[in-house]
Amino acid sequence: MLKQRIAGLLNERRSGFSMPQAFYVDEEIFQADLEAVFASDWLFACSVAEIKRPGDYVTMEIGRDSVVILRDRDGEVKAYFNTCRHRGSRICLKESGRANRLVCPYHQWVYELDGRLINARQMPADFDKSGYALVPVHVEVICGMVYVNVAENPPSLARFRDTVTPYIAPHQPDRTKVAFSSTIIEEANWKLVIENNRECYHCAGNHPALLVTLVEFALPDDPAANATFKNLMDTSTARWDRLALPHKPADGGVEFRCIRLPFNEDCVSFTRDGAPACNKLLADFTEPDLGSVRMFRVPNNWNHFLADHIIHFRVLPLGPNRTAVKTTWLVHEDAVEGVDYDINRLTEVWTETNDEDRILAEHNHQGIQSRAYRPGPFAPSEFMLKNFAEWYYGKMSDYVHGPAHRIAAE
Amino acid sequence: MLKQRIAGLLNERRSGFSMPQAFYVDEEIFQADLEAVFASDWLFACSVAEIKRPGDYVTMEIGRDSVVILRDRDGEVKAYFNTCRHRGSRICLKESGRANRLVCPYHQWVYELDGRLINARQMPADFDKSGYALVPVHVEVICGMVYVNVAENPPSLARFRDTVTPYIAPHQPDRTKVAFSSTIIEEANWKLVIENNRECYHCAGNHPALLVTLVEFALPDDPAANATFKNLMDTSTARWDRLALPHKPADGGVEFRCIRLPFNEDCVSFTRDGAPACNKLLADFTEPDLGSVRMFRVPNNWNHFLADHIIHFRVLPLGPNRTAVKTTWLVHEDAVEGVDYDINRLTEVWTETNDEDRILAEHNHQGIQSRAYRPGPFAPSEFMLKNFAEWYYGKMSDYVHGPAHRIAAE
Amino acid sequence: MLKQRIAGLLNERRSGFSMPQAFYVDEEIFQADLEAVFASDWLFACSVAEIKRPGDYVTMEIGRDSVVILRDRDGEVKAYFNTCRHRGSRICLKESGRANRLVCPYHQWVYELDGRLINARQMPADFDKSGYALVPVHVEVICGMVYVNVAENPPSLARFRDTVTPYIAPHQPDRTKVAFSSTIIEEANWKLVIENNRECYHCAGNHPALLVTLVEFALPDDPAANATFKNLMDTSTARWDRLALPHKPADGGVEFRCIRLPFNEDCVSFTRDGAPACNKLLADFTEPDLGSVRMFRVPNNWNHFLADHIIHFRVLPLGPNRTAVKTTWLVHEDAVEGVDYDINRLTEVWTETNDEDRILAEHNHQGIQSRAYRPGPFAPSEFMLKNFAEWYYGKMSDYVHGPAHRIAAE
Ligand code: FES
Ligand code: FES
Ligand code: FES
Ligand SMILES: [Fe+3]
Ligand SMILES: [Fe+3]
Ligand SMILES: [Fe+3]
Repeated sequence: MLKQRIAGLLNERRSGFSMPQAFYVDEEIFQADLEAVFASDWLFACSVAEIKRPGDYVTMEIGRDSVVILRDRDGEVKAYFNTCRHRGSRICLKESGRANRLVCPYHQWVYELDGRLINARQMPADFDKSGYALVPVHVEVICGMVYVNVAENPPSLARFRDTVTPYIAPHQPDRTKVAFSSTIIEEANWKLVIENNRECYHCAGNHPALLVTLVEFALPDDPAANATFKNLMDTSTARWDRLALPHKPADGGVEFRCIRLPFNEDCVSFTRDGAPACNKLLADFTEPDLGSVRMFRVPNNWNHFLADHIIHFRVLPLGPNRTAVKTTWLVHEDAVEGVDYDINRLTEVWTETNDEDRILAEHNHQGIQSRAYRPGPFAPSEFMLKNFAEWYYGKMSDYVHGPAHRIAAE
Repeated sequence: MLKQRIAGLLNERRSGFSMPQAFYVDEEIFQADLEAVFASDWLFACSVAEIKRPGDYVTMEIGRDSVVILRDRDGEVKAYFNTCRHRGSRICLKESGRANRLVCPYHQWVYELDGRLINARQMPADFDKSGYALVPVHVEVICGMVYVNVAENPPSLARFRDTVTPYIAPHQPDRTKVAFSSTIIEEANWKLVIENNRECYHCAGNHPALLVTLVEFALPDDPAANATFKNLMDTSTARWDRLALPHKPADGGVEFRCIRLPFNEDCVSFTRDGAPACNKLLADFTEPDLGSVRMFRVPNNWNHFLADHIIHFRVLPLGPNRTAVKTTWLVHEDAVEGVDYDINRLTEVWTETNDEDRILAEHNHQGIQSRAYRPGPFAPSEFMLKNFAEWYYGKMSDYVHGPAHRIAAE
Repeated sequence: MLKQRIAGLLNERRSGFSMPQAFYVDEEIFQADLEAVFASDWLFACSVAEIKRPGDYVTMEIGRDSVVILRDRDGEVKAYFNTCRHRGSRICLKESGRANRLVCPYHQWVYELDGRLINARQMPADFDKSGYALVPVHVEVICGMVYVNVAENPPSLARFRDTVTPYIAPHQPDRTKVAFSSTIIEEANWKLVIENNRECYHCAGNHPALLVTLVEFALPDDPAANATFKNLMDTSTARWDRLALPHKPADGGVEFRCIRLPFNEDCVSFTRDGAPACNKLLADFTEPDLGSVRMFRVPNNWNHFLADHIIHFRVLPLGPNRTAVKTTWLVHEDAVEGVDYDINRLTEVWTETNDEDRILAEHNHQGIQSRAYRPGPFAPSEFMLKNFAEWYYGKMSDYVHGPAHRIAAE
């Protein structure tokens, strides 16, 4: 019956327009989102810089599931559902930490970092521990970014990996450390949070600090771009070509986007004045002005890779009208706080920008609730929202009709 | 299925008794109330004193809908759904304010005060702005009171207007200003808030400050009234007749009520001691003792019009067990705060009374939740609750069977 | 349809394993619990020490029902739904208090302590008060413990009464007074709160203060017990036999449990050091070391009866993931605070223990929410959880199929 309802809503969709109301505000559809998207897709979890040493772990909440992501004794990244096989207690209670073994706080069942149950005190002699390992979660590491997937048979990430690696690898994310991270809660549907991020149509009116450095154009050949931007592109691409850094828009279809774009004239980083945020550059860069690789991947992640730092954004749905956005700033692992970088200076522009975006998304959510809401037309600069809607409609169509349906129709 | 359920509950109703439990506490029936009552009826919104100048606006929340009410350039009062036609953001973010034009905070689409979209930056040349005006909401102004209706074809207000105008107009609400307003949240169903207001059976035990001035009787010929009240009525009506002020109970059926009643002996206003709250009287009154016109209208409004001030009460449902009550005190527009009136003195009696009523309504709601609740009999002085129940049952019956059903049966 | 669902879940149950997920986390099943368990079973309400004098009352919330329990003029304990027969207001607003008569705060209808409506001011002369008595709730007092039942035809408590009285009566609960009580809210399903209490498998890792005095074994012949415990049992039972105090495990089936067990060597009470908490012993005891009678009864109560004090624990469900736990400490009615006992010393061990258990139950609830949760196997020392599950499945089966079904099958 919910599937019928969704099928009906999908029939109402109109290309180039925002989505029918229920997709943004409905409780049942939110539950469908959790299954059709968040329990089926690869999700950005964290940076490898957050789990450098064996036993380092982070936890994340995907709907009702807590997942623990850790580095095992062999240096591999592994992920498990954070639920004990005895009577189901959470095991790792903190957002991040370090553990030699995973010990359940309730009755102290002990799990190895590879997930095996290795001790269950007081259980009978004939108790077969091998049947009670932690339930694994699929995990992939791509250019220092950890992605997890709670489905049984996740799709391949090969195309994504192959495409984005040439852009990101030169920034050497494996040699970074976390300078700062923050999580904010937005009282808005997760799709509104993503849509907000997928266009800069709202930037001029809302992001004074960001626009000091960020160019508002999303494509090198943006038809709306002026001569200044064209000159800037020409100078920048010449420099990047010299350094053998890829920059042209990658073909990620509706799944992902990857491109290198310049900062505004005389700006090299997301700071108030455009000067570097960290004097120790990433990798072995000597050139501070590499613009930024802007990488986005559905459903929950966008990133900036600069010469001097990296920013990851992670979106997780908490409810039909509640979304968590975590921002993580990475710098070179040898950079010294207070010497090479100042945390406030490094983070203030995106901290402000995140808050501005939160307010926009919240008012968007409120307005959409009305009986007067009708899907409205995208501006040309909102072309990425069209991609996002298409991708989402595809996921919901798979959910309603089964994936075979879509493949057969192609 | 919900309609079947409501039909079943309507069959259980018993005249002269409080309503079946579900009407007070059920989540689904609350959703039906939002449609059957709040999306179909005229609702009290505000006083014209709150939007005196062109561009002045107030916003109000009717269920999931935000509505903006404003005065346009021609001095007319207009109302719109507060939802942008681009991607649905709220437009006016404050409870009240002033705007030359309505500019959406998200991407700055600009609407004229008459609702037309007059600018949508960066949209293609062939974009037809005329298809994207703000969605209008019906609005009527009656004796300075603004009523709105979000339905497509609202019923007529002519009878209400014609009946109450002779009572209210002499107080000249157009020449008032807002002295103070407050909003309280009551953890009770909106119908319990209204019922609480429709009887003074609870006054003796709960409203010490109010009863200094308020007579507990609701009708000039109240059978329970004593000789003191009868004398008071005689003296008062003689004075009002001399001043040509109507006072007899108006015939508003179950829709509204309008009557002028005296204050207690030697009292002229809702103050702690009964002395005037504002020395500058309304209109061009010279007589401070005009009793008060008590006007009530389903579903969400009651009022007092005195010689020296006006009080509007506005009820809006927030959930099955949450209701907002806004109180607005108006005085003569030339009255000077600190000279002619003191805000604390003007507002303290009804501020206390509102809070006493909030507690009563909350305990009422809690008790009704029990499996032991059974509809109980009204006391004679609760006759207005019978009217209210009849009106409400009529609305629900219309909702379940369609309005034709009722008209045909009459 | 809900009943079908529950029947399906009952088919999934596996003996010796924790319950299927939905029983712990589902909103609908929580509503079924309220009917099948809390509106059908006898519930522990309070101690008679809380309502010593005529007119003393306590209120408690059972789902959406508030119940008032009081001592009437004849010294009998009575219980009523705390809902006025006029328009349904709550009547007693406090958790405990004293009243000569029950007067509704809304319109002052007056009820005698025996429930009769004795005054309803302003009601017409022909109003028949006899039809509007408070709705009674069944109540039974067993060894100073007040149990209530909101069902129409409660089952018999005779077997429970007859079995536990010999264990508890010697502690003379009628001669006690309340030294302290506290209520904590646990963000966990009520069944997880009960399960947590029904095993001490978690004690070693979580209850340092409690384990100073509490023996971790639940049975005199615990197969896991060591020589120390066996010696302790032998010495203790010899002493109890001498004092004619019953101690062997009672046969309460899945309904209740009653047993006397010793404290650890050299300990006599739940204090930090094991020394007495109150110098004035209960009854006319002279022997401070009587171990403790541990009594549990489904669905909502466990207790300890010591030589020097009594502790009652009362569990009430607030939501699928919210539970209230009230703890009440009783001492001899002639004990003097500051002389015979110190409140902090009396209460600190179980205050800490309750909080430790709260955290365990909350993490248990969180972990069970996951799609990775599967019912897990009980350790031998968790045998009481098997009883609890059996009892609960029986209640749900009765709810789904009707009680006749189960009786016929026996
Ligand atoms: S729940 Fe993990 S050890 Fe018991
Ligand atoms: S949502 Fe209003 S301008 Fe975009
Ligand atoms: S509700 Fe109790 S007296 Fe009116
Ligand atoms: Fe933004
Ligand atoms: Fe009142
Ligand atoms: Fe415990």
